[in-house]
Amino acid sequence: MKIDLNCDMGESFGSYTLGNDEEMMPYITSANIACGFHAGDPHVMRQTVELAKKHGVEIGAHPGLPDLLGFGRRKMMCTENEVKDFITYQMGALREFVQANHVALQHCKPHGAFYMQAMEDKKVARAILEAIHDIDKETIVFAVNNSEMMEEARKMGIPVAREGYADREHTEDGSLVLVRKGETIENYEEMAQRVVRMVRDKQVITFDNKDASIEVDTVCIHADTPGATTLAKAIVDALEQAKIELTPVKKII
Amino acid sequence: MKIDLNCDMGESFGSYTLGNDEEMMPYITSANIACGFHAGDPHVMRQTVELAKKHGVEIGAHPGLPDLLGFGRRKMMCTENEVKDFITYQMGALREFVQANHVALQHCKPHGAFYMQAMEDKKVARAILEAIHDIDKETIVFAVNNSEMMEEARKMGIPVAREGYADREHTEDGSLVLVRKGETIENYEEMAQRVVRMVRDKQVITFDNKDASIEVDTVCIHADTPGATTLAKAIVDALEQAKIELTPVKKII
Amino acid sequence: MKIDLNCDMGESFGSYTLGNDEEMMPYITSANIACGFHAGDPHVMRQTVELAKKHGVEIGAHPGLPDLLGFGRRKMMCTENEVKDFITYQMGALREFVQANHVALQHCKPHGAFYMQAMEDKKVARAILEAIHDIDKETIVFAVNNSEMMEEARKMGIPVAREGYADREHTEDGSLVLVRKGETIENYEEMAQRVVRMVRDKQVITFDNKDASIEVDTVCIHADTPGATTLAKAIVDALEQAKIELTPVKKII
Amino acid sequence: MKIDLNCDMGESFGSYTLGNDEEMMPYITSANIACGFHAGDPHVMRQTVELAKKHGVEIGAHPGLPDLLGFGRRKMMCTENEVKDFITYQMGALREFVQANHVALQHCKPHGAFYMQAMEDKKVARAILEAIHDIDKETIVFAVNNSEMMEEARKMGIPVAREGYADREHTEDGSLVLVRKGETIENYEEMAQRVVRMVRDKQVITFDNKDASIEVDTVCIHADTPGATTLAKAIVDALEQAKIELTPVKKII
Repeated sequence: MKIDLNCDMGESFGSYTLGNDEEMMPYITSANIACGFHAGDPHVMRQTVELAKKHGVEIGAHPGLPDLLGFGRRKMMCTENEVKDFITYQMGALREFVQANHVALQHCKPHGAFYMQAMEDKKVARAILEAIHDIDKETIVFAVNNSEMMEEARKMGIPVAREGYADREHTEDGSLVLVRKGETIENYEEMAQRVVRMVRDKQVITFDNKDASIEVDTVCIHADTPGATTLAKAIVDALEQAKIELTPVKKII
Repeated sequence: MKIDLNCDMGESFGSYTLGNDEEMMPYITSANIACGFHAGDPHVMRQTVELAKKHGVEIGAHPGLPDLLGFGRRKMMCTENEVKDFITYQMGALREFVQANHVALQHCKPHGAFYMQAMEDKKVARAILEAIHDIDKETIVFAVNNSEMMEEARKMGIPVAREGYADREHTEDGSLVLVRKGETIENYEEMAQRVVRMVRDKQVITFDNKDASIEVDTVCIHADTPGATTLAKAIVDALEQAKIELTPVKKII
Repeated sequence: MKIDLNCDMGESFGSYTLGNDEEMMPYITSANIACGFHAGDPHVMRQTVELAKKHGVEIGAHPGLPDLLGFGRRKMMCTENEVKDFITYQMGALREFVQANHVALQHCKPHGAFYMQAMEDKKVARAILEAIHDIDKETIVFAVNNSEMMEEARKMGIPVAREGYADREHTEDGSLVLVRKGETIENYEEMAQRVVRMVRDKQVITFDNKDASIEVDTVCIHADTPGATTLAKAIVDALEQAKIELTPVKKII
Repeated sequence: MKIDLNCDMGESFGSYTLGNDEEMMPYITSANIACGFHAGDPHVMRQTVELAKKHGVEIGAHPGLPDLLGFGRRKMMCTENEVKDFITYQMGALREFVQANHVALQHCKPHGAFYMQAMEDKKVARAILEAIHDIDKETIVFAVNNSEMMEEARKMGIPVAREGYADREHTEDGSLVLVRKGETIENYEEMAQRVVRMVRDKQVITFDNKDASIEVDTVCIHADTPGATTLAKAIVDALEQAKIELTPVKKII
């Protein structure tokens, strides 16, 4: 049994620091690096790519909507061409830093409202996937179960990593509760066991306390929540105890 | 005898149109495409790359300082790391659109104040060249004679295209009069003959009416001046009559 | 009989020119000046305020969503606090240029998607009106008939100018067809007569060719459409012939 | 004896937090609030104005260069018109939040590279002062001794507050060491005594250990340095013990 742990990284900007990249990087296997639209800047991108490389962590693009003020969390009604061009621009910018470090882009995971819109709106999903597809059909895309993104990626033959969340609630169909409906789990150990259960038993307890089937290739941890490194450590320890191998997602799917 | 004609392209932004790319593209052999910092946006970049490809025009990055409001024409005191990262980011963004169109980046020519600062300041020149060098040592850089950019590029083994200007004044050492000191030439035919003379005779008449030696591989025309297409046509016709071949700079140096 | 003619102004940005402010200003009585979010910049704002003052044209704020790339035409899902703060910021920036010229702000008309969202969404309308109300309860707000904006403004006791459009289609309830459903009127004289009819007869022919009642205090002309000045002149002439006085909206409501 | 303590405030942006405004506000008498160019955003501005008002702290504009990425710390070569318009825009935006809270703007202190450029360059100083002067001749401007800003303000009859720094080095003529030349004082008590000495004895020990005369109306503390609140508390305590009254600068000059 294998699983990938991914985390959003490189979301600082200029004089502003966000997240705790140095502390989180040792625990994860895939880093989603911001590309300058919702967060990140050229200098932060270079540093984050170097940090990921140093820890042997695989790198993915984490493109966002062009809304630094709103941190890419406000939905914006963009055309399909706009979506496609935003993805191409940001993936290219990151890829250059990646190539300057003699590594490669493993995956792409849109950020915030962009990710949400790609879950729900087939046209947005399609436009994102076309941008990826035009350059490299082997780039893995991250998507939650039962999303438009997953369905479209499969149609187009783009490899998809099925994503679960350590710190968010799931629904019975294995997808994500975007607007939190249930109780927040504050117990790190409980969250870690949830990850183990997802991977080993292909089961997750939903926000409304039901048992649901889920299959995940990668699990997301958020770096900007308090206690993020404690949670990361708890998950890594729990996976180790359960004999589940932590490895970048490209070795799983 | 051969010469390359280059022009700044893709400087529109969102709802704002600048320049006359569709009309100028047929006359030139190398397009310097803005990368979103001083001008250009993802959609404009895609369209301009497609337009250049359609006309068989070679593509170069035209990275600027992060100052859309000032159109990259205000000097900004950046550190060498900032300069390097700005170049990497912008070249990458453009390269992705270029690769999506199955063509390649021929060259890099910094824009406006960035270009000026690279002429005069060895550290800025070096930082730009390092960014280029890290990715692809074959990327040609554009520079005027007797500039820090040219000297550093030669030290680093990066191919340089020596650039003359159709519509700007030159000095006796073959470099450029940045702050216009002499009279403006308004006669298109006279400007066209100046280009012919630069290429065929390796001579230019300076802003103060002296004869100076100059060697150029590429000649720049500005697209945002009135009469730009008339000038472009006059130059192309004059070169043809003088039996000088118009060809992308990569086939010259 | 009196009517106000309003037009969006000051939508240039940096090196980018948009619209034809100098030519349009003589025909109108109220200028909606962009405030730097969707368009406009500090220099353009100063110039446009000076131009309006020179022509005796009343000035209003034309605040937009923070989306220069999308020209404020993409809907963005903002919270009420965000909406309120965006309005306060932009009105203040413009008011300072206005006061430096010893004139005053007559009105406020949100731009593009912001205007649309305020028509349809009571919360957005309310947040905009609160921002206006906090500073000056006499500032007139522009709104189309049967919009949330109009209803909320009336509840709050904020003066509203009822707005008709010279170059857009109307519906039977007197509101606006945002997504154009009918034929475009290309005949300037016909458009001018429509304005006369709105003012004199309180009637408009709808997009689907019905007769509808409408009451308007101000009529909007767009400056960025081809033939804008021709249309403006036709309207001004037709109003004059019909003995309808052109005057700023503050003298009407 | 009286002194004003000022501090840069409201420099957070969107999801990014900078400084420790809530903790610092109780110690100071004048807040320099960022206006959205180098830092700050509409929401942060409203909150910071409310916070200052709650603590009875006077409010000043803290306008910066339009360079969020560089936090306004990179010199930009702007024209005088650009400088003037940048100041007007930002002061207006802040003034609107201030007026919505029924308080008033006490002063203006340009930020970072803008402040430096105004110290050294008479044209920049003049353009800033003209923007202030056009609106309200009573607005106090902050300036260090022997700066162009101070000299021009006096010529124009604009009230100036002479500014000393708790945590920076001074030169023999009472002006500021911009590029740190001497040792950093890490002893809070020593820094606090320096402030007492400036106010009570009109003396400061320079970076090169000489005794210099200095007259100050306001002393700046930086909120973004570690130990800022400890330093603020030490200064406030030391001033109290020395029977020096802490009061907003408008009651001093």
